[in-house]
Amino acid sequence: MMKLEHIGIAVKSLKKSNQLFESLFGRAPYKSEEVSSEAVETSFFQLGETKVELLEAKREDSAIAKFIEKKGEGIHHLAFEVEDIELEIARLKSEGFEFVMDQPKLGADNKRICFLHPKSSNGVLVELCQEIKE
Amino acid sequence: MMKLEHIGIAVKSLKKSNQLFESLFGRAPYKSEEVSSEAVETSFFQLGETKVELLEAKREDSAIAKFIEKKGEGIHHLAFEVEDIELEIARLKSEGFEFVMDQPKLGADNKRICFLHPKSSNGVLVELCQEIKE
Repeated sequence: MMKLEHIGIAVKSLKKSNQLFESLFGRAPYKSEEVSSEAVETSFFQLGETKVELLEAKREDSAIAKFIEKKGEGIHHLAFEVEDIELEIARLKSEGFEFVMDQPKLGADNKRICFLHPKSSNGVLVELCQEIKE
Repeated sequence: MMKLEHIGIAVKSLKKSNQLFESLFGRAPYKSEEVSSEAVETSFFQLGETKVELLEAKREDSAIAKFIEKKGEGIHHLAFEVEDIELEIARLKSEGFEFVMDQPKLGADNKRICFLHPKSSNGVLVELCQEIKE
């Protein structure tokens, strides 16, 4: 695991939360992106080498909608950048970690992503992500 | 606000979670520290320019003990490094943010810290921290 790539925060309204986090951080989001596979609309703020990703659900069956219904708005996941996502999944499985999915899938921000099950990491939803090289 | 300085994760057992996060990150914590003002024992992992801080409560009246009782283990706060904590508190108050405390206090890792109220920041507990220069 290389570095903390981003923190995902579940929000009800991207419009309201973009304003709120722009005031908090003293800078505007540098991009917005819809991720249809996850049924979310996202925006990104850069803070040093880490990003904060705000996530608004676009459908009721989105994982973000379910998260907010259960826990309210707040931090949803931590994403760590890895060099080789298949190697890292294999390493972590051999250490006893459980994954939500078996194969990496396409995420926001030009990345292949995979989620560990939070029950195997102290209640923290951990995402591995690997940048797709052109 | 400059960068994400660290992420605080509330854990029941620092001993168990040190092993778990050492397996996850593929590296050992680089230090441990007791913060008596907060009644917590902490350990730190370095991941790029950001740290992950694990927090175990040392008393039942610790904020970390109350957090775990209410929400279970998981991400407790995000800490952002600032140049001048008093200036940043004044700026954020003028933007309408509410604080848990009125004055910065001494935190772990040689820092002056201050917490915003999570109700004013989308359910995210935000810490401002400023390094104490020798």
